Amino acid sequence: MAPVVVLSHPQLGENIGAAARAMANFGLAELRLVAPRDGWPNGRAQAMAAGAAGIVDAATLFATTAEALADLTRVYATTARERGITKEVLTPAEAAQRLRSAEVGGERTAILFGNERAGLDNDEISLCDAVITIPTAQFASLNLGQAVLLNAYEWFRAADTTPAARTEHGALHRRPTRAELFQLFAHLEDELEASGFLYPPEKHDAMARAIRATIHRARLTYQEVQTLRGMIVALAKGKHRVRKDC
Amino acid sequence: MAPVVVLSHPQLGENIGAAARAMANFGLAELRLVAPRDGWPNGRAQAMAAGAAGIVDAATLFATTAEALADLTRVYATTARERGITKEVLTPAEAAQRLRSAEVGGERTAILFGNERAGLDNDEISLCDAVITIPTAQFASLNLGQAVLLNAYEWFRAADTTPAARTEHGALHRRPTRAELFQLFAHLEDELEASGFLYPPEKHDAMARAIRATIHRARLTYQEVQTLRGMIVALAKGKHRVRKDC
Repeated sequence: MAPVVVLSHPQLGENIGAAARAMANFGLAELRLVAPRDGWPNGRAQAMAAGAAGIVDAATLFATTAEALADLTRVYATTARERGITKEVLTPAEAAQRLRSAEVGGERTAILFGNERAGLDNDEISLCDAVITIPTAQFASLNLGQAVLLNAYEWFRAADTTPAARTEHGALHRRPTRAELFQLFAHLEDELEASGFLYPPEKHDAMARAIRATIHRARLTYQEVQTLRGMIVALAKGKHRVRKDC
Repeated sequence: MAPVVVLSHPQLGENIGAAARAMANFGLAELRLVAPRDGWPNGRAQAMAAGAAGIVDAATLFATTAEALADLTRVYATTARERGITKEVLTPAEAAQRLRSAEVGGERTAILFGNERAGLDNDEISLCDAVITIPTAQFASLNLGQAVLLNAYEWFRAADTTPAARTEHGALHRRPTRAELFQLFAHLEDELEASGFLYPPEKHDAMARAIRATIHRARLTYQEVQTLRGMIVALAKGKHRVRKDC
C-alpha cells in the first residue's frame, strides 16, 4: 500500500488541494489532516484539487498528530533544515526506497508534513522514525504542495528500482504500530518522571525527545517493545512494592 | 554551467514567476522567454518569484523558439505524453545525468518547456535532441511550475553529494567504545538479574543476548549510553534504597 500523506495543522485550503493533486499525479491516495486551521470540509481545497477531489473528499480528520499516526508502523517527518536532533536524515530518494521495501514487508507507512508557516515541531518529529530533507541550493523556498510533489514523485519513481523484497525480521517479529510505540514512550516517561530522572522541569521535554529518538533508531520489533516494557516494570516494580509495604 | 530554462509562449505571469522560483531552489539561473502572451516585463511574474526575482529580472526575450535555442549545443524538450515522433524519450533523471555530462564537456545546455495550454508543438520538438517525459500515475496534471521544479530537482540531485542518509550527530555525540558498551550491558543485566527479570536461569543468556542485539541496532552515541545508564540507576534506585532502609 502506498504511503499515507499526513498534513499537520495545514493553513490554506488551496495547499491541501495542491497536495492532493500532487499525490494523485504519483499514485498516492490516502490523505490525513491534523486540525486544519480553517476547518473541514474546505471548499477551496476541493476547488484546487480539481481532478483529485476524490482524495480530498476521502481525507480523514484527526485532533492530534499522535492520533493520526497511531495505526502506522513507519513514519518519516519532512523538515526543511537541521534540527540538532540525533535522528537519521534521509533524502527523498532514499526514503522512497525504504518506504517501498517496508510496503513489500506489509508495513503501513506515512510521510508527515508540517504546516506552511512553521513546519513540524520537535514533539511531532519525535513521533517519527527518521527525517526527510529535500536537498536544495542556497535559495530554498519550497511550499507545502511542492514538498508533497517531490516526495510523491520519488516514491512513484522508486517502483521500478526497488530491490527484491526483503524484511529485516521474521514473521513473528512484526513492527509495532505507532500507538504501541507511544504506549512505550508514555510508560517509560512516567516511570522516569516518578523516579526523578526527567529533571529539571525545563529540560523534561528535550530529555524525553532525546530518549524517543534513541528508541526510534533501534527500529524495535513488537516483541522488543514488549520486552522493554517488561524491563521497565521489572526495574521499577520493587521500588513501588517496597514503598507500599513500608 | 547549469542548463538554461526556456519557456515557449508562456501565458500567465504567475507561472513564469513560479518557474523562476523552482529554478532558484535547485541552482538554475538563466531563464529565456519566447513571446510571453502578456508581454514583458510582467509584474505578476516578479511578485510570484519573490526571492528569485533576480532570475526574472535577468530573463531574456526572444521572438521565436529557434532564436532562443540558437547558441545552445544540447536541448531537451519536455512533453506530457507520447507524440508519435521517432525521438528518444528520457526520464528527468536520465536527462539530468546527460546534461551533467554534457556540461562537464563544455556544452551549453537547456530544457525547453511548452505553454500551459498546449505544450510544445511538433516543430519546436524537432529543434531538440530528445524528449523528457515525467513518469506519472494515470492521473496526470502537472503544471508548468511543477514540471520545471521536477526537472530542476533532478538536475540538482544528479550532482548531489548529499549522502542518502546521515545522522545528525554533534561533536559531543561520539560513538561509544566497545568497553563503554560492555559496561552498559553489565549494568543493565545486573539490575535486571536483581529484579528477577532474567528468569528462568536457563533462558538468562538468550534473553541477555536479545537485549544486547536491540542495543547494538540502536547504534547509540556515547551520550545516549550515559543517558541509558542514568535511566537504569533512576528506575532501580528507589528499590535498593528503600530495601536497605527497611
